[in-house]
Amino acid sequence: MDKAQQDALKKAAGIEAAKIVENDMTVGLGTGSTVRFLVDELGRRVQEEGLHFTGVTTSRRTQEQAEGYGIRIVNIDEVDHIDVTIDGADEVDKNFNGIKGGGAALLWEKIVAINSNRIVWIVDQSKVVDVIGAFPLPVEVIPFGVGHVIKKFEAKGYRPTLRMDTDGKPVRTDENDLVVDLHLERIEHPQDLATDLITTVGVVEHGLFLNMVDTVIVGDPNGPCVMTNSNK
Amino acid sequence: MDKAQQDALKKAAGIEAAKIVENDMTVGLGTGSTVRFLVDELGRRVQEEGLHFTGVTTSRRTQEQAEGYGIRIVNIDEVDHIDVTIDGADEVDKNFNGIKGGGAALLWEKIVAINSNRIVWIVDQSKVVDVIGAFPLPVEVIPFGVGHVIKKFEAKGYRPTLRMDTDGKPVRTDENDLVVDLHLERIEHPQDLATDLITTVGVVEHGLFLNMVDTVIVGDPNGPCVMTNSNK
Repeated sequence: MDKAQQDALKKAAGIEAAKIVENDMTVGLGTGSTVRFLVDELGRRVQEEGLHFTGVTTSRRTQEQAEGYGIRIVNIDEVDHIDVTIDGADEVDKNFNGIKGGGAALLWEKIVAINSNRIVWIVDQSKVVDVIGAFPLPVEVIPFGVGHVIKKFEAKGYRPTLRMDTDGKPVRTDENDLVVDLHLERIEHPQDLATDLITTVGVVEHGLFLNMVDTVIVGDPNGPCVMTNSNK
Repeated sequence: MDKAQQDALKKAAGIEAAKIVENDMTVGLGTGSTVRFLVDELGRRVQEEGLHFTGVTTSRRTQEQAEGYGIRIVNIDEVDHIDVTIDGADEVDKNFNGIKGGGAALLWEKIVAINSNRIVWIVDQSKVVDVIGAFPLPVEVIPFGVGHVIKKFEAKGYRPTLRMDTDGKPVRTDENDLVVDLHLERIEHPQDLATDLITTVGVVEHGLFLNMVDTVIVGDPNGPCVMTNSNK
């Protein structure tokens, strides 16, 4: 599939997900290329249909895009709860375990997700996998002592790499942390891995989102299809 | 005990601990009022005895004090290992479980500690307790969504308060995070609490240092006494 075809699937999933948003909802807005299409469609509904809702964003990028459409954005601490959060994902398996953080916004994405009544992911079909792990697992790490965290990950066979930007400098998150990507290929025991990562001193958060999502909308050449998580 | 007496005990513990440092060691230097006396004594040994060692600091405050004495300070990622870290503690029990973070430097303190071959704490006798928890337990929290973390802590009966400075503004750590203090009075199951805190999304680190310390030097009116942890 070429990029134009993949973008068409992402866009179809984004448009489908935008239908979930109703007037007066508080909506978590994720980050990434698929979410861009969602926000474009929500912006269209705001401007053409008079849709009015409040957004909570998971990155400065999404905030700027949404505010450009006149969508009201508030800080997460200004709302009691979030009705629904719509976000992308880098991989998701049939048990609704996923990897997020390709866009380096996993921390705010997880904070928004954990405070949402309902979580919806929008992905193209290439993101749905049997076993997660082919996508490098992002881990957000405090800069102070990052070299020692990387050495520990190497000793455990996690194959870590420090994420660099196109200028060859370490990528910084919105919290000014670093991103270490783990090249695991297959994550057979995601819950054990999640526990090991979060209890590693220096780790702020990791990109494993395990059984958190309620609904996955998959962009497919036959039209968007919906996976519903009944075990959450 | 008045403050002058307490300071005398802290100073005695700091001077005793300074004897541990030998030429060419890499030494982790903690943070706090007792560590100030340690660094003063190490500075004296550098200037009067020609002691030479390399320091790794856990806060900008300690770094400035040490560099003022001409102590060579390097970043933790410039050293392979740390021979010994000497730090204070806010409370420690007979099982060598402790609380740190009264000075808001718990994150860097824990990163330095975890990478040290040996850990020494210096405290005055008032810090040695039967059950930890009378000292409010500091938790370092990401600002984004902190209100929701505080609500969760309240629901669990942790009695959280956001730490404020003397100007009435939230205290910021060296990582620009916030500090939430938990007023627990008695922590009967510290390992369970540690697991609950570190797996709370938004929590970066907490001030429970459980069975990490090797030696506690206690400033006592009868002279410094040493507690040795044989179960680590």
